[in-house]
Amino acid sequence: MNIMSFFGKRSDSASVAKNRLKILLAHERGGNSNTDAKLISSLREDILAVVAKHINVDPDCVRLEMDRSGDTTTLGIDIELPDGEAK
Amino acid sequence: MNIMSFFGKRSDSASVAKNRLKILLAHERGGNSNTDAKLISSLREDILAVVAKHINVDPDCVRLEMDRSGDTTTLGIDIELPDGEAK
Repeated sequence: MNIMSFFGKRSDSASVAKNRLKILLAHERGGNSNTDAKLISSLREDILAVVAKHINVDPDCVRLEMDRSGDTTTLGIDIELPDGEAK
Repeated sequence: MNIMSFFGKRSDSASVAKNRLKILLAHERGGNSNTDAKLISSLREDILAVVAKHINVDPDCVRLEMDRSGDTTTLGIDIELPDGEAK
């Protein structure tokens, strides 16, 4: 499984950078894409807070990318970790 | 971006099922893969708790898949959502 494909647009930088955490949420349903976007957005902050509990995260090193296509809302969170990130 | 590729082994079932939330964590580093696995495992429980705050999740409808290859530890969380899952 090629994890670089998760963030296709950032494959080049991802292949160069070391020590990253990538989180991807994908919500598939036949429902209202706005509702999906709200759900994903509400999960985003809480998940970032969870990550910050475990890892020293520099907010400047967090990239977010949301994509809505068809029945799927996708949120990508790409975190560049400092050395000794584990708390 | 084809989200089915995130969970290659479950592409068939994922393409049939509706109303799913997929969460994927990928940790890349040149470090100790055991340390990576511990970090991912510790994030898993907290992220599942966060999801449960926003969505009515049936534990029987949660699938976890952890993969360690090279310098990357990957955790896939695949949640089949009930109707009216939003809290």
